Amino acid sequence: MTPLKILVAPSGFKECLQADAVAEAIATGLGRACPAARITRRPVTDGGEGFARAIATGAGGHVEPVTVTGPVGRPVTAHIGWAGGALAGTAIIEMASAAGLRLVPRDMRDPLATSTRGVGELIRAALDRGARRLLIGCGDSGTNDAGAGMAQALGYRMLDAAGDELQPGGAALAWLERIDATGRDRRLDGLPVMVACNTRVMLTGSDGVARRFGPQKGASPEAVRRLEAGLATFAAVAARDLGVRGLPALPGAGASGGLGAGLHALLGARLRPWQEVVLDGLALDREIAAANLVVTAEGGIDEQTVQGKVPGIVAVRARAHGVPVIALAGSVGAGYEAVHAAGIDAVASTLGQAVPLDEAIARAPADIARTAEQAMRTVMVGMSMAGRCRDSQSRCAA
Amino acid sequence: MTPLKILVAPSGFKECLQADAVAEAIATGLGRACPAARITRRPVTDGGEGFARAIATGAGGHVEPVTVTGPVGRPVTAHIGWAGGALAGTAIIEMASAAGLRLVPRDMRDPLATSTRGVGELIRAALDRGARRLLIGCGDSGTNDAGAGMAQALGYRMLDAAGDELQPGGAALAWLERIDATGRDRRLDGLPVMVACNTRVMLTGSDGVARRFGPQKGASPEAVRRLEAGLATFAAVAARDLGVRGLPALPGAGASGGLGAGLHALLGARLRPWQEVVLDGLALDREIAAANLVVTAEGGIDEQTVQGKVPGIVAVRARAHGVPVIALAGSVGAGYEAVHAAGIDAVASTLGQAVPLDEAIARAPADIARTAEQAMRTVMVGMSMAGRCRDSQSRCAA
Repeated sequence: MTPLKILVAPSGFKECLQADAVAEAIATGLGRACPAARITRRPVTDGGEGFARAIATGAGGHVEPVTVTGPVGRPVTAHIGWAGGALAGTAIIEMASAAGLRLVPRDMRDPLATSTRGVGELIRAALDRGARRLLIGCGDSGTNDAGAGMAQALGYRMLDAAGDELQPGGAALAWLERIDATGRDRRLDGLPVMVACNTRVMLTGSDGVARRFGPQKGASPEAVRRLEAGLATFAAVAARDLGVRGLPALPGAGASGGLGAGLHALLGARLRPWQEVVLDGLALDREIAAANLVVTAEGGIDEQTVQGKVPGIVAVRARAHGVPVIALAGSVGAGYEAVHAAGIDAVASTLGQAVPLDEAIARAPADIARTAEQAMRTVMVGMSMAGRCRDSQSRCAA
Repeated sequence: MTPLKILVAPSGFKECLQADAVAEAIATGLGRACPAARITRRPVTDGGEGFARAIATGAGGHVEPVTVTGPVGRPVTAHIGWAGGALAGTAIIEMASAAGLRLVPRDMRDPLATSTRGVGELIRAALDRGARRLLIGCGDSGTNDAGAGMAQALGYRMLDAAGDELQPGGAALAWLERIDATGRDRRLDGLPVMVACNTRVMLTGSDGVARRFGPQKGASPEAVRRLEAGLATFAAVAARDLGVRGLPALPGAGASGGLGAGLHALLGARLRPWQEVVLDGLALDREIAAANLVVTAEGGIDEQTVQGKVPGIVAVRARAHGVPVIALAGSVGAGYEAVHAAGIDAVASTLGQAVPLDEAIARAPADIARTAEQAMRTVMVGMSMAGRCRDSQSRCAA
């Protein structure tokens, strides 16, 4: 008798529970239904909050706290992820841990003023600890400075026409006249840097980051125009002073308020879709192939789930390996049926009561555990019904 | 290859969907997941709303509409159920279809005034059509007249001290002085009458129907006292004039505002728990034994589900036959885990969104169908996982 092997690979539930807490709740429920199962947890994040922890602990590593300058100038505790195996020597950096929107107090949300300085400090700390490669997650940022603050922390001089250093924040970027790289940290030279980001976010224009995400970071319509002008200025100066052309056309350059552009222009970073980076970083293909069943989850499952959301990317890989997938969802929205074609065999809603949204959020861990338990019990009903297995596969065929 | 046989045996969702509509929604969802399945629908009701239709159609019969006097004196369309087999010649009468609370306009809810006259008319109509036995469901009543109105419709005289007929309603009952049976419909003599009711409802006292259900029928505290006095008077007069003693101690005598007492005292009816009557009437044991899977449902599943609610009684029978049971629930409440010990293998919540209760009710048919489909898909995941069936049974053992 081989125990069942179940891979738990959920997303976080937005504004409710982070991915690792979702994975823990699911594992608890599955264990109640099927105590003998071997359950592997691989919470899946995009490049934003939880990125470093998910990748590092998924590869048997850990995260190390590092105090840096936060987005509004006050110290914050950010972290660096470290792991072994294929990731040995790679520092896993999560921009959100140093300059995320959550670190900006609500009454100070203003991307004209917030800075990525802490991201540069985090990179320096990683180099101090011997990092030979950087894997940087972008997402959930509270900034829009194209990485100017980061650059300054790494020894770049970001100068205005008077030759003075730019002040922190997205507002100052429109005054950028010259980038002086002579004082940069020399350990950056030749350092491989890979960025996990949303590659659909452009630096400027109608898909530009200031227009798409500025308002939720606290920017007024007038501020959005100023931020957009600053990002365009950065692209022009980077082309002239660093010889890096084409930032406005580079997919992902807009990620995290243009930090993608800064990382590419200043550190030579490659910008990759977070979906691919996370699949690789978590070795999800190998984990899926070893499993009898995959349980994934997301706060809401609907027609958009198959367009690059976590359950969608997990399911596509699982189907390639012939492993069944069950998805738990905080809410099930219009057009959710599309997920079946993408490889999600069944969906279960985690809501147990008709309650207001805030109460549903408070109950989420218990509701997720209950739903995982009951879904597994339902799977076990099917296993028992298979009985004579020879014809079980075909008994539901149309 | 034998197609799967699935028995759908849900309760109604209270104040939301009747049992037959729930069964239809479940069957729709199961069919989407498993088009080859042979699905049998057996909606299960207590003695109240839906009783006649559930029993009659469950036995391959039909319901016949009959116009009678409603609880507030206006005509209503009630119905009689007819079926073949073991129920051939039996008229299936649903008191709620002639005198149910739903037939009393909200601004007229007053059990001091409402009457069961329509129930008597329905019985007469059944006798006119040749009924040789009566099966009467009690529940969801809007009346509290101990069946006095019914009795009058069947030729009994219910007289006050002046020798005048009582007026309709529960208030008049306290004036009852004499029951004169000489003018009764002679076809009632020797007629077998069985009542399906909640046998925990007593005629008077702390478990008496006026105290327990009077307020929800519209009775004030003062009205409850008057109704209670009327029911006690009926018991005393029935003992003296009809020789039927012990009504206050008879389980179920209080059912449907004392209609149970009236049916027993005037028609010699046997009062039985609706759970047993419905199990028999729907031949549920036979249907369960023939199924590979049973799907049941209720508006709310919680610790009370195992105490005589539909999913509980279905599950106990299914366990006896070794057939797995999945229960769908509009809400999953505290202590729901108790259902597993009673034979419900898994529970699935039908809520898909955090919405107010009234919206959840409006979405119920679609939500129930979706949940049934997804639960069946989850069963099918288990069937496919069973793969090598020899060890599939034990892979989840602790």
